[in-house]
Amino acid sequence: MKKDTSEPRAVLINTARSPNAKLTSVPLDSLVLSGDPFWGDRLERNRIVTLRNQYQQLIERGYLENFRRIVEGLDEPDEGLVFRDSDLYKWLEAASWTLACEEDPDLIDNVENIISLLKQAQDDNGYLNTYFVGERAGKRWANLRDLHELYCAGHLAQAAVAYYRATGKTDLLDVACRFADLICETFGPDAGQTQGVPGHPEIEMALIELGRTTGNAHYLDQAAYFIRARGHGLIDGRPYHQDHRPVSDWEELAGHAVRALYLSTGVTDWIIEDDNSDTHEAVDRVWQHMASRQVYITGGLGARHSGESVGADYELPNARAYAETCAGIANVMWNWRMLNLEGNPRYADMLERALYNAVLPGVSLDGKRYFYVNPLAVNDLAPGDITEREPWYRCACCPPNIARTLAKVRGYIASVDPDDTLWIHLYATHRAEIPLRNGRTLKYLMRTRYPWSGHITIEVLTPGLFSIKLRVPGWCASEGGMQPEVRINGNPRPGPVTPGQYIKIRRTWAVGDSLCLDLPMPVRTVAAHPHALENTGRVALMRGPLLYCLEGIDHPGIDLRDVLVPLDPQAYSSAFEPGLLGGVQVIETEGKVQPPASTWDDQLYRTLRSQPSDAAPAETLTVRAVPYYAWGNRETGRMQVWLRHKS
Amino acid sequence: MKKDTSEPRAVLINTARSPNAKLTSVPLDSLVLSGDPFWGDRLERNRIVTLRNQYQQLIERGYLENFRRIVEGLDEPDEGLVFRDSDLYKWLEAASWTLACEEDPDLIDNVENIISLLKQAQDDNGYLNTYFVGERAGKRWANLRDLHELYCAGHLAQAAVAYYRATGKTDLLDVACRFADLICETFGPDAGQTQGVPGHPEIEMALIELGRTTGNAHYLDQAAYFIRARGHGLIDGRPYHQDHRPVSDWEELAGHAVRALYLSTGVTDWIIEDDNSDTHEAVDRVWQHMASRQVYITGGLGARHSGESVGADYELPNARAYAETCAGIANVMWNWRMLNLEGNPRYADMLERALYNAVLPGVSLDGKRYFYVNPLAVNDLAPGDITEREPWYRCACCPPNIARTLAKVRGYIASVDPDDTLWIHLYATHRAEIPLRNGRTLKYLMRTRYPWSGHITIEVLTPGLFSIKLRVPGWCASEGGMQPEVRINGNPRPGPVTPGQYIKIRRTWAVGDSLCLDLPMPVRTVAAHPHALENTGRVALMRGPLLYCLEGIDHPGIDLRDVLVPLDPQAYSSAFEPGLLGGVQVIETEGKVQPPASTWDDQLYRTLRSQPSDAAPAETLTVRAVPYYAWGNRETGRMQVWLRHKS
Repeated sequence: MKKDTSEPRAVLINTARSPNAKLTSVPLDSLVLSGDPFWGDRLERNRIVTLRNQYQQLIERGYLENFRRIVEGLDEPDEGLVFRDSDLYKWLEAASWTLACEEDPDLIDNVENIISLLKQAQDDNGYLNTYFVGERAGKRWANLRDLHELYCAGHLAQAAVAYYRATGKTDLLDVACRFADLICETFGPDAGQTQGVPGHPEIEMALIELGRTTGNAHYLDQAAYFIRARGHGLIDGRPYHQDHRPVSDWEELAGHAVRALYLSTGVTDWIIEDDNSDTHEAVDRVWQHMASRQVYITGGLGARHSGESVGADYELPNARAYAETCAGIANVMWNWRMLNLEGNPRYADMLERALYNAVLPGVSLDGKRYFYVNPLAVNDLAPGDITEREPWYRCACCPPNIARTLAKVRGYIASVDPDDTLWIHLYATHRAEIPLRNGRTLKYLMRTRYPWSGHITIEVLTPGLFSIKLRVPGWCASEGGMQPEVRINGNPRPGPVTPGQYIKIRRTWAVGDSLCLDLPMPVRTVAAHPHALENTGRVALMRGPLLYCLEGIDHPGIDLRDVLVPLDPQAYSSAFEPGLLGGVQVIETEGKVQPPASTWDDQLYRTLRSQPSDAAPAETLTVRAVPYYAWGNRETGRMQVWLRHKS
Repeated sequence: MKKDTSEPRAVLINTARSPNAKLTSVPLDSLVLSGDPFWGDRLERNRIVTLRNQYQQLIERGYLENFRRIVEGLDEPDEGLVFRDSDLYKWLEAASWTLACEEDPDLIDNVENIISLLKQAQDDNGYLNTYFVGERAGKRWANLRDLHELYCAGHLAQAAVAYYRATGKTDLLDVACRFADLICETFGPDAGQTQGVPGHPEIEMALIELGRTTGNAHYLDQAAYFIRARGHGLIDGRPYHQDHRPVSDWEELAGHAVRALYLSTGVTDWIIEDDNSDTHEAVDRVWQHMASRQVYITGGLGARHSGESVGADYELPNARAYAETCAGIANVMWNWRMLNLEGNPRYADMLERALYNAVLPGVSLDGKRYFYVNPLAVNDLAPGDITEREPWYRCACCPPNIARTLAKVRGYIASVDPDDTLWIHLYATHRAEIPLRNGRTLKYLMRTRYPWSGHITIEVLTPGLFSIKLRVPGWCASEGGMQPEVRINGNPRPGPVTPGQYIKIRRTWAVGDSLCLDLPMPVRTVAAHPHALENTGRVALMRGPLLYCLEGIDHPGIDLRDVLVPLDPQAYSSAFEPGLLGGVQVIETEGKVQPPASTWDDQLYRTLRSQPSDAAPAETLTVRAVPYYAWGNRETGRMQVWLRHKS
């Protein structure tokens, strides 16, 4: 599958020539994760089960037929919502990234089958969208706010870039470029052009990556146009469509969560290419606001079902969280750009948080079902409660978005910088052969049981003087507890190993040198800001990068709202259970269960005398927490992330 | 204005001949409230300011023009949403109830002007709806689920009944009956009829009242049909449209809050007329569920913006409360029926709670602006926060609904039962001349400063042997505190005076006898059920029937989420301030303000060591609470009902 081209092999984003990039992505196929106890099987399942299942959905639900309809001039009605083509493109992108790393002839056949259809279905002028054909062809570009044509075009371009980088083949890239050329021609401030911005951002990051891959500066300029044109009333003033203010004036994410995050991602890509200090400051401001006031503990975003929107500061309902899987994915994409732009480890912390706790819950352990909405509590099992993953959705943005994100996971592990320093962001067992700028290849072998263990060893396989930066995650900050440690060939490295930083080890390495990082992984009890009112008096349990939750199946007959857990992290134990949920580290502690006192029976409000409430007798129980990403894989039942703490 | 007819004068619901009614409404004009310090000015303002302002809106926004368009065969386009006629009918009902009590020639002119238009605009077959004319006439009855024709017809009937009872004039009643006859003919299970139920209940209670007023049993049968036909998939299975299950199988209010409550109201009216033991049990169950798990402390309902829906049990967000004003109004209407059906004082408690705390906040103190959504907190003053009443809404269900509810307030004060016992539910200064079944008139004079004072005196002006039942509100339940007392001619009545009951005083009264009820009105600190998670560690302040809140204007520069108040009710004082907010009793206490500790800066989640959070130093401040109904009348600012309590 390897191609012969000057484009770097399958990098997630190609910032090698970007003026403002601190980091450069490494090719997906430079890391082999097959032996990793956490990601190895998961990525295989993504390829073998998820991508195949999704291809079946694409066939059965008429996604391919929509294209065939155009090619063969069929009279059959089309299928699906206005943005359905983007689902297929995301699948194509997922398959492409997968093919960059794995041999899979069946998958190649399916991909080539689709690409062949796309080539034939494309209009002579470059336009390609299965919704706006026949009678609806007259509506092309008629409503950028609502009709998602630029959104679909963006996903086509992302798929084309992935396919080109994975295979070196240019046929899909040609399709995407012809469509992009039409877009560049059509939209802009010049005479004969139409002014406009899309209601759902996506084209921005896609055009920039298309520009990076083709060297065509028009695409970057066009992305810059779409970004700069926002906030001037071209569509409407509502945050929902991200047209409420110029991006350089942004103070915070607002409106539709996924749209806001996709736009932030595209804007960050733009800043990587073009020095926009005002906009860079705005994006930093927005990120800080998001991280300190808007993000769920999962790394997910979107407090409101209504308008799928971000919500107000500290508005973080649990049972009614929206936290669309696509928003968690977008948070990963955005933080990857921010990390490449600034090299600040806080972005890797956020990316890791979202990847394990906002993206992974989106897919069932068997790889066949998906969450669209991600509550942090299931209380009553009332009709309408989100309790089960679905095999597909009519609005199916999430399933193929998860598939492409998993297909990209390898790419988030490491980067190199202009000094050929290797930055390691995420930990997993893998073998790496990373191409450096100086033409050499940096080889190493990482072994770890992360995220179950914080013990990580790197066996260096390339000799010479170079630097390795290891991320010391922010989550292992501890006062008076165990400290992270670095050892080289068994000898402790002197000096502090500070959480929330990269630690740089520069030395002349010999083949077989061992670099060891030990991240303490006690159970942590985590509180939320006092203004996150639903979490008052409650804590969440975390261990390493993973958020935990309680499930009803482990606490039969118990209302999980009434479970009390200790504050003291030392009161918790954890152990790996290979047979449970595909193998997970379980957390246990002795807790209590204290239902509302009987004086509350049939009362919702009660006048107090002197005590806030009459405590019911509390009974002891063994509290058992499992990783949040694995919830809902055993039965339909209750679930709770935020737990009452004993006072 | 008095009419000459056998129909009782202007009673809210005419249950005089209803087989299952425990109580009968008394005519609105049998109570004169003009001297009441709370309601007197309010009802005058409703007549002089609100009804006139709303009439202007009806003219300026084309409501009347829509009818004139039909009458004059004009080509002008129509205005407003599909259910706009109902706004006009609600105004007409409000004006009619007002005219039952007050002379107002201008108002009569406006009402007669509208009625004249309606008569002329009505189709020969009885159909009347300004939306379905011209091209849209073909869509009549095409979609009962979404198009609100039966909803509008119901409001027409309610207006007609009110106008007839107020004036004795039958012209509007004739219009309503002709339309109702068409509906009876069109919908039903018989050959040639269409099966169907409306997506927005309202026609049920309207047809029943039309049946009560005309004696035409067909209307009752038709209401019974519309009720019985629900839950059998005639429209769809979603709770939003109240077609998800037969009403006799109801367990709880679900879906759209206003629709659920309007249907409950109609169903209760039906039970009053027809002994449906299964349905009666269901309605009791649903009420109990509502009162113990779904209702806001205001008496409002509707936790979710999304779908304007009730929400899950204990789902009671504060800043994001929906609590549509119409749902509070519907709660008043439903509880009035339940009270008439069962005579249980819990319904009067709920009605009073909703009237003062869910309906009254809906209108500004000057009578010119309205809330549609009623949050219980305003935190950040972010864009989109509900902070100000509006002069009108495009979906304008609430403003005229408030006007008609205020116009009916007199009617909720007292009832009589088949034994001619007088039941007094609500307290206000008034003079009463209440017609009894035995042909006599019961006269008395009530004097009170309620809701500011719980001291109530009744001077009996009719001699003879009869019974008076006084409601002892549930809110004055107290352990070890002051007890309610009843005195007759200054002498304490022996025996307990139990809160949450009616106390019956049967004696031979002499003219000038004094009956005195003293309801203790200390400030109360009220907690919410432990499963109402946003209220954990928080209390609300109440006094008498009134809920209180803090406003930013009284606590400049303070984030009201950070205010701590005492639990001990004795730590509070209250005083009447005649110059504030039209005259209100203000509550004060010494509280503290404790912002999040500086360790929270820029953090949303924090790993704990041993303490749940580092407390910031707390500063003392004077906490000042005002009645919730009066919030938002001084400036756009923060507001908070649920306050952190000192531990």
